Amino acid sequence: SPTKWHLAHTSWFFEAVVLAPMVGGYRPWDARCHYLFNSYYESLGPRQPRPQRGMITRPAAAEILQYRAHVDRAVLELLAGADGQRAATLIELGLQHEQQHQELLLTDIKHALSLNPYDPVYTATIAPTAATAVPFAWCDFPGGEVQIGHAGDGFAYDNEQPRHAALLRPYQLANRLTTCGEYLAFIADGGYRRPELWLSDGWAAVNAAGWQAPLYWREEDRGAWSLYTLHGRHPLDPAQPVCHLSFYEAAAYAAWAGARLPTEFEWEAAVADQPPAGRFLDPRWLQPRAATPGPGLLQAFGDAWEWTRSSYDPYPGFRPLPGAVGEYNGKFMVGQLVLRGGSCVSPPGHLRASYRNFFPPAARWQFSGLRLARDL
Amino acid sequence: SPTKWHLAHTSWFFEAVVLAPMVGGYRPWDARCHYLFNSYYESLGPRQPRPQRGMITRPAAAEILQYRAHVDRAVLELLAGADGQRAATLIELGLQHEQQHQELLLTDIKHALSLNPYDPVYTATIAPTAATAVPFAWCDFPGGEVQIGHAGDGFAYDNEQPRHAALLRPYQLANRLTTCGEYLAFIADGGYRRPELWLSDGWAAVNAAGWQAPLYWREEDRGAWSLYTLHGRHPLDPAQPVCHLSFYEAAAYAAWAGARLPTEFEWEAAVADQPPAGRFLDPRWLQPRAATPGPGLLQAFGDAWEWTRSSYDPYPGFRPLPGAVGEYNGKFMVGQLVLRGGSCVSPPGHLRASYRNFFPPAARWQFSGLRLARDL
Amino acid sequence: SPTKWHLAHTSWFFEAVVLAPMVGGYRPWDARCHYLFNSYYESLGPRQPRPQRGMITRPAAAEILQYRAHVDRAVLELLAGADGQRAATLIELGLQHEQQHQELLLTDIKHALSLNPYDPVYTATIAPTAATAVPFAWCDFPGGEVQIGHAGDGFAYDNEQPRHAALLRPYQLANRLTTCGEYLAFIADGGYRRPELWLSDGWAAVNAAGWQAPLYWREEDRGAWSLYTLHGRHPLDPAQPVCHLSFYEAAAYAAWAGARLPTEFEWEAAVADQPPAGRFLDPRWLQPRAATPGPGLLQAFGDAWEWTRSSYDPYPGFRPLPGAVGEYNGKFMVGQLVLRGGSCVSPPGHLRASYRNFFPPAARWQFSGLRLARDL
Amino acid sequence: SPTKWHLAHTSWFFEAVVLAPMVGGYRPWDARCHYLFNSYYESLGPRQPRPQRGMITRPAAAEILQYRAHVDRAVLELLAGADGQRAATLIELGLQHEQQHQELLLTDIKHALSLNPYDPVYTATIAPTAATAVPFAWCDFPGGEVQIGHAGDGFAYDNEQPRHAALLRPYQLANRLTTCGEYLAFIADGGYRRPELWLSDGWAAVNAAGWQAPLYWREEDRGAWSLYTLHGRHPLDPAQPVCHLSFYEAAAYAAWAGARLPTEFEWEAAVADQPPAGRFLDPRWLQPRAATPGPGLLQAFGDAWEWTRSSYDPYPGFRPLPGAVGEYNGKFMVGQLVLRGGSCVSPPGHLRASYRNFFPPAARWQFSGLRLARDL
Repeated sequence: SPTKWHLAHTSWFFEAVVLAPMVGGYRPWDARCHYLFNSYYESLGPRQPRPQRGMITRPAAAEILQYRAHVDRAVLELLAGADGQRAATLIELGLQHEQQHQELLLTDIKHALSLNPYDPVYTATIAPTAATAVPFAWCDFPGGEVQIGHAGDGFAYDNEQPRHAALLRPYQLANRLTTCGEYLAFIADGGYRRPELWLSDGWAAVNAAGWQAPLYWREEDRGAWSLYTLHGRHPLDPAQPVCHLSFYEAAAYAAWAGARLPTEFEWEAAVADQPPAGRFLDPRWLQPRAATPGPGLLQAFGDAWEWTRSSYDPYPGFRPLPGAVGEYNGKFMVGQLVLRGGSCVSPPGHLRASYRNFFPPAARWQFSGLRLARDL
Repeated sequence: SPTKWHLAHTSWFFEAVVLAPMVGGYRPWDARCHYLFNSYYESLGPRQPRPQRGMITRPAAAEILQYRAHVDRAVLELLAGADGQRAATLIELGLQHEQQHQELLLTDIKHALSLNPYDPVYTATIAPTAATAVPFAWCDFPGGEVQIGHAGDGFAYDNEQPRHAALLRPYQLANRLTTCGEYLAFIADGGYRRPELWLSDGWAAVNAAGWQAPLYWREEDRGAWSLYTLHGRHPLDPAQPVCHLSFYEAAAYAAWAGARLPTEFEWEAAVADQPPAGRFLDPRWLQPRAATPGPGLLQAFGDAWEWTRSSYDPYPGFRPLPGAVGEYNGKFMVGQLVLRGGSCVSPPGHLRASYRNFFPPAARWQFSGLRLARDL
Repeated sequence: SPTKWHLAHTSWFFEAVVLAPMVGGYRPWDARCHYLFNSYYESLGPRQPRPQRGMITRPAAAEILQYRAHVDRAVLELLAGADGQRAATLIELGLQHEQQHQELLLTDIKHALSLNPYDPVYTATIAPTAATAVPFAWCDFPGGEVQIGHAGDGFAYDNEQPRHAALLRPYQLANRLTTCGEYLAFIADGGYRRPELWLSDGWAAVNAAGWQAPLYWREEDRGAWSLYTLHGRHPLDPAQPVCHLSFYEAAAYAAWAGARLPTEFEWEAAVADQPPAGRFLDPRWLQPRAATPGPGLLQAFGDAWEWTRSSYDPYPGFRPLPGAVGEYNGKFMVGQLVLRGGSCVSPPGHLRASYRNFFPPAARWQFSGLRLARDL
Repeated sequence: SPTKWHLAHTSWFFEAVVLAPMVGGYRPWDARCHYLFNSYYESLGPRQPRPQRGMITRPAAAEILQYRAHVDRAVLELLAGADGQRAATLIELGLQHEQQHQELLLTDIKHALSLNPYDPVYTATIAPTAATAVPFAWCDFPGGEVQIGHAGDGFAYDNEQPRHAALLRPYQLANRLTTCGEYLAFIADGGYRRPELWLSDGWAAVNAAGWQAPLYWREEDRGAWSLYTLHGRHPLDPAQPVCHLSFYEAAAYAAWAGARLPTEFEWEAAVADQPPAGRFLDPRWLQPRAATPGPGLLQAFGDAWEWTRSSYDPYPGFRPLPGAVGEYNGKFMVGQLVLRGGSCVSPPGHLRASYRNFFPPAARWQFSGLRLARDL
């Protein structure tokens, strides 16, 4: 989706979900935006087909900015008025939704720029790279009965609820994300040519798509690899976390390494006591960085989303919210896998231990990596 | 797949998985069968592409029967010999595998015959139908910590293991399978035209495939419905369990009914104390029948597979067996949903409480129905 | 293709076909343009896949204009230099190529804008419409041995050559293009629902694409039709020529009307004595207009391309030019149909009697209409 | 299509086109055959979708033979009765139609058997092969005004009519079909990797389908080629005519050879004086054979169909017959190329100089080869 679309869609979301239901006599900026900028809300009527989003030349970017200003004004008026308190929950959903699109926007920009043989540089500043990766180590966790899902008063999506108990066996998690250097060894060992390492659908995807490496990797003439990033194309840094992997690749790598992916419950129990801090969106550095040495579980938040071995199923007792906001999460609960922890393009403050992201198993376009797990 | 293919494939399985590894100097009946009748075992080499199975005119049916006799003889010799005891586990796997294909064979035959405007009758005998359905009722279950997975010494697939504890909330299950009459009310209420009842992928499937009813249903000119069965085409019997549903349809029906599908753990805990008895494969009657009145949970086994709300994920501690037999289950553990309980075309003796069947969510060709669940 | 792409591609054509071969030591503006803006010239190396043209955000529009200025300067220098005379033929090809893209550019803009529910107005001025269509009449032509193909010294594409004799039976052509009003009668008579009127591939296309009217037509609630044009959406004018038809629709209409489409030879012989004048590209009016009353064959040039019943085959003795310019026409000579006469978006001065345009039979995006023919 | 389908379809054709319209009160053998065995006649109602033909297990082969006997009896009665004379034209069409399916039947059988790794032998007898090919030579033809199309009283399809004059330039045709040995030189010279030799759609087909040789060719480990034939798999015979080529391959070969394909008019004018004799269907030998040395144009009839450079367009003055028989040819006159001369699986007596066969340019499954042409 084009940048303009993201800008308009997030404002449309406020208009459709907050303003239209809560402001009596609200006049939309332009009724046609309702058709153009609805992403997938069936209950809100027909919408522009997704493949044609790139074809919409009007409204122009300047008009979209006017649209955003119009919606911002109306939301501020609502907040300041008598219904402000009542509207706060929906407004917070609108803000969280916009934060998600801040990440999607950069992910889409990276993908669009990557198609250009110019290897365009989105931003030139680059943070220093680590000389070497933090040595790999296993962290032990006792398992047992753990509490899963959102607790407390802060914002959370409906898919993180209700909070409930789960039973875990004792397990281990890798102390950091898998690195590009480790993943290279998998490639060098024929990882993409050995069906026994792959799930059946994954092997089909490898063959249909001709995958031989993660997205944005390219083998140069001299046998070395380069990586396209939002900072341009650079030689592969073996200490950096590998990302832009599909679930299939993450699972195959884990099988090759004699390990497995963690379940989302193992992950959540392991990070429950950490503050949700890490390398999140920082305009100077839009690529996962090598872990900083330290004890315990590193890089739990930020750097790269971590594929889990958990299908995106509803929690016991899950109920979607009524109306359009109920379409936010529940209707996608089939055929997708859970990712945890956020990435280097997730806005700061957006993540938490109970946060569940999800994608189909073949998706590679997001900043998705992995952390190994195994039974104790 | 054609009948001939099933006949050859199940004998090939004995040849490839039992005889080749265990009988020194075993001479395959014809080496080319290895290519023709391998279904999906990557570790056993290349194979005939699935869409071309119907094009294989040689070996002829009579030759396939010779092939089966050849393999049967060799297996009996192995069993009678010094290695018989050691071979027993693999031979049992071969037998269980053949039982699964007995069900697939009838499912494929039904599908092939259904494409014929003649409405061919596979078998003419028909059991008497019930005058009315057993009244719907909820059965209560306390939940709590339950044991899931195979226990005891009998045969079980690797995907039913290891046995482990799970936590359940208190829940209810319908006392019987959902009936055709109940499903008709869903259709009449616009079930196939209301996106809010459907998962997002399900709604896409409805629109792409033009589904308006379960597979094999046809609305006749007079507004009434008929059903194609292995006994020919008959008017819809409202007391019969609905079957040939996709997961998407089962989930949409449950949403419409104000309920949900059970998880596979809820299902297994509820039937754990029942013997695995029910209407299984009986040549006289190849269609699910109305429940027989009685107390408690009816039709837990047989009649129709029950879609659950559980993705087909590995159990905690799951490890596939080494070698080709390890490709049996584990490599399909993504993108599929679990079905439980067996059907009217499952061979008697094949099912148990811990048995996990699985299919992609859009599959409708198997005898798949549903049982409602809800939180207590 | 986006506007920016057309602007860059036509300059790239001068660079690749004129400057690179003729200017010793010519330095391309940016070597990467060679990859980005090559449309289909295999002999000039690999190129950006067509579906990704819309994804190219760099070079930006301002850079493309610099590119064009750079190329223009170099071409002018070449023309002024010692090799100017020798370069003239290739430069003329570059100019004719750019004229073709002037038409494609407007055709693409119309298509892109039409996807927008805003019905954007590209240009507001609209010429007055005719009160009524010129009455339909047949013009007689004697046939016999006629001369086909380009004659004289002016520019012509290789596909118009060599000039050669052809034999025609006596025939009639309609005095003007088929009108929207006439085409409406075909629709009203069930034209899109009667397979006997259609070619087999055409009937398949109607059913696969769900065509019920020409492209850009929409039936409004009140049973009347509107048309999207570069002047916005307007009520259908029955006197206007019908356009945005596929060959299949043109042929089905002709069958319904008890007539046929002319061959390209009949068309060319009929207009051979006319000057190539008509309503060509005029920024004020970007839609075909009703014929102006008069004797003889009206609207032979301009207004709308005329589908012929001729496959786009090579003329007797045809030889493509050597090198990249030989890829211009000859390699498309299969699976396409010939259109003649130009349209309201063809640049003035671009057309001639021997000019052969060509498109696959399902294409509707260009300004393509029809003129009826029949045997005398 | 399966053999059973061909057997039933050709009898259905007599039933639908001859018996139903001409025999008052004719009772079809089984009304459902009308749905099952209609190939593409829109005017005769709905029909079994083509991809499902292979799935029709009933009626069984024995019943189809009864069906054929039933239809044969009824046709003989009609012929013997008062309307026999009037029915003769339609009955002849039915017979010619059945002859066409005799060729299609063997073509389909070859394709089905070729998918089997057993390389099944359809018939074991093999004619002796020539030691060497007849030396290549050009035959000269003067061109000028020639008569094209069917003349005389015998049977001909509507697409061969009306007979009409055409103008040809002086031209040359190869004295025999292109051989496998000649085609091997094209492959060895990189023919399948050089885009400049191919039509644009042809190059796309090569890349999409991964063609590297004609259908049924296989490069064996030792660098030599084998050919699958109805006589089993054999080493490639360089003197044999190459066949199972698409039009795209035939045209690329001709370009590589510095020649072109003949037009259908050049072909017809060249053979007009020959009797339509050649190696046609002979159960002992189902593969094209090397030409027998002799003067003039060899192999004009039989051995392999010859792709021409002519699109399958209607002849001047062409009119399809009214009703269902009018769907026989005319509705396919777009997107196909003409082949001439028949093949080693065409029934003897079926061909003539004016006979026009036609296929889409990517089709390779029929016995299709080529003869070179060039301008004099």
